[in-house]
Amino acid sequence: MEGEPTRVMIGVNESTIKGYPHASISSKGAFEWTLHKIVRSNTSGFKLLFLHVQVPDEDGPHLLEYFVNRCHEIGVQCEAWIKKGDPKEVICHEVKRVRPDLLVMGSRGLGPFQRVFVGTVSEFCAKHAECPVITIKRSADEAPQDPVDD
Amino acid sequence: MEGEPTRVMIGVNESTIKGYPHASISSKGAFEWTLHKIVRSNTSGFKLLFLHVQVPDEDGPHLLEYFVNRCHEIGVQCEAWIKKGDPKEVICHEVKRVRPDLLVMGSRGLGPFQRVFVGTVSEFCAKHAECPVITIKRSADEAPQDPVDD
Repeated sequence: MEGEPTRVMIGVNESTIKGYPHASISSKGAFEWTLHKIVRSNTSGFKLLFLHVQVPDEDGPHLLEYFVNRCHEIGVQCEAWIKKGDPKEVICHEVKRVRPDLLVMGSRGLGPFQRVFVGTVSEFCAKHAECPVITIKRSADEAPQDPVDD
Repeated sequence: MEGEPTRVMIGVNESTIKGYPHASISSKGAFEWTLHKIVRSNTSGFKLLFLHVQVPDEDGPHLLEYFVNRCHEIGVQCEAWIKKGDPKEVICHEVKRVRPDLLVMGSRGLGPFQRVFVGTVSEFCAKHAECPVITIKRSADEAPQDPVDD
């Protein structure tokens, strides 16, 4: 039942918390969930594809380094790349181009009231991406002071 | 990175095709996808939990036997049980009770026009189940003559 590894695309972004130039809480959550619940000890069975859609002033290469380093430590194959544009559209476009087996997205897990004003990339992708999608909600105890931050 | 296996709940149902008393095409698709893309060769890392929500005149035990037998052949731990009620509500309720790591649902992959009349259990569960959900759409070449059938 082996053969080609399962290719899991993970959409990652930077934290919105001021002065915290790291991966967002929900991106890290989606990544760690994928390692612990899906990849587990079968490191050769998976390849992780990190896509970062850069918004102005963001430090994309530094962000991706974090995920790539973690993969190297664990021994999971990976690729990472940066695109510019509207995150939800770019992610769906990249799914079409790259054809992963699965797309994993982190989400802040906002309630319906907050979602109206914020809009969620993960919701759009779950609906429109042409591959199976898992959305990993941020756990309540990881939410920052302002839950709209991430 | 091992420890407790990842517990994957899979909602399964019978085919709606007349005179075909077997698992639905989309249930089988969701199951096979889980085996090939997630479990792979790591059979001891996962436990599959098959839930069938029975509607009148259905043969639940026979349906579950199919999935349980396949798991035994492959060597994946599993459990299977039957509940009665409204499938979407029962599945979300069972997720709350059983707390799987992941819920996998098959879907017929109908277009928006057909969906309005049919309603989809997978869409409801993706929104309301209290765990990450993957929806596996039936591939176009597996669709029966009437795409509303499954």
